[in-house]
Amino acid sequence: MSDGKAEIEVTAGFLVIGDEILSGRTKDKNIGFLAEYLTAVGIDLREVRVVPDITERIVEAVNELRARYTYVFTSGGIGPTHDDITADSIAAAFGVSVDVDPRAKAILEAHYPPGQLTPARLRMARIPAGAELIENPVSKAPGFTIGNVHVMAGVPSIMQAMVDAVVPTLKTGRKMLSTHIDADVPESRLAERIGEIQKEFPATLIGSYPRTNDGRFTTQIVVRSRDEAELAKAAKAVGEAVAQATA
Amino acid sequence: MSDGKAEIEVTAGFLVIGDEILSGRTKDKNIGFLAEYLTAVGIDLREVRVVPDITERIVEAVNELRARYTYVFTSGGIGPTHDDITADSIAAAFGVSVDVDPRAKAILEAHYPPGQLTPARLRMARIPAGAELIENPVSKAPGFTIGNVHVMAGVPSIMQAMVDAVVPTLKTGRKMLSTHIDADVPESRLAERIGEIQKEFPATLIGSYPRTNDGRFTTQIVVRSRDEAELAKAAKAVGEAVAQATA
Repeated sequence: MSDGKAEIEVTAGFLVIGDEILSGRTKDKNIGFLAEYLTAVGIDLREVRVVPDITERIVEAVNELRARYTYVFTSGGIGPTHDDITADSIAAAFGVSVDVDPRAKAILEAHYPPGQLTPARLRMARIPAGAELIENPVSKAPGFTIGNVHVMAGVPSIMQAMVDAVVPTLKTGRKMLSTHIDADVPESRLAERIGEIQKEFPATLIGSYPRTNDGRFTTQIVVRSRDEAELAKAAKAVGEAVAQATA
Repeated sequence: MSDGKAEIEVTAGFLVIGDEILSGRTKDKNIGFLAEYLTAVGIDLREVRVVPDITERIVEAVNELRARYTYVFTSGGIGPTHDDITADSIAAAFGVSVDVDPRAKAILEAHYPPGQLTPARLRMARIPAGAELIENPVSKAPGFTIGNVHVMAGVPSIMQAMVDAVVPTLKTGRKMLSTHIDADVPESRLAERIGEIQKEFPATLIGSYPRTNDGRFTTQIVVRSRDEAELAKAAKAVGEAVAQATA
């Protein structure tokens, strides 16, 4: 497969932090959201990891991902409770201290009625040294950016608002263009010709996705490329292959 | 947090293989399914990774996960098309050859009308040397198990049938018991006392999960333990804390 040209690529990794996803009690909604969002703006999501609320596992994953991709996003573990260990873990990953941040504290002081900023709530103002805050329009307690790592809440509505705040500040790559062709046959009927077309158009990425519709197997062929002309040519070839297979 | 006792633990990692998840075009349904399933039978899912259709990334992830956990599950990339590279990648990870497997070929021969087992379809019979087949009651093309790695389809209905086939053959740990307490207050109102309760009951894992209901913030506290008596005691303490916070 072609990876396109390096100079026009901006990449990302996503780290989902939370026992509740791994136990199945909470069904993740953030992976699909972020994947679609980044694709739309021209950032290639290359890897996702889900890890439990264990400091060493968070530190290890953050350090691997931030060395490998242009940007890392994390979700989860920045609330006020004992199991919210993300800020401390990110600080450990970067080897910096973590303490109550005056800017974050000011935001929380303005939000809670006088005397209500309890020690637990003040935990949400603990930010690694050197980080910039990410605004949280939903419930105020901010996320933060340190280095190339963007640390966000796990609650989908808050996570999505933070993505909206962060992504416009990032560099984005040449956008991956995409088109798809639906075929009313199982993918095995198309496989050989589609494989040939992939070889004929190396600047495209052709994916074949089997579906079940009412117990019948159908296929969606997705063609992606950063080159509009190549995309059109490959999609035309796929369309012809599908027409032939369904004739 | 307590990790429980090692001798009663059976762990797992899950590797989701597929560009379509990372592009956001397909929303993953397998992570939540497998997480819930494994929790129910007493296997601890400890890590999930999503990687693209690139051999080196699959090999790297499989080798890291299989060294770390009792079992590894993978989903995706075992169909008939050029982008289905999972069997070859798993063989590479184990350093074994991969070829058309007579057992798998026999299954496909019985399934397709005479003369219809095309070279593309025969690709689905490529199985790493030494692997055992996993039955596919939905569309016949089998998954396989090699070492501690269980390789399954990505289409949710097929993946779920394969999980049903595989899991009864695995060893399972002492089951993690779970209970939850809903609290009609933001988690910051409960955080200090819940943190104390976690310390008082180290054989439990207490998670605090913020929710938004009609714009109001509420909390679900989840208590988990393999020890029924400890679970009951910790849950009682949480219930009292919630009653006090909402009084």
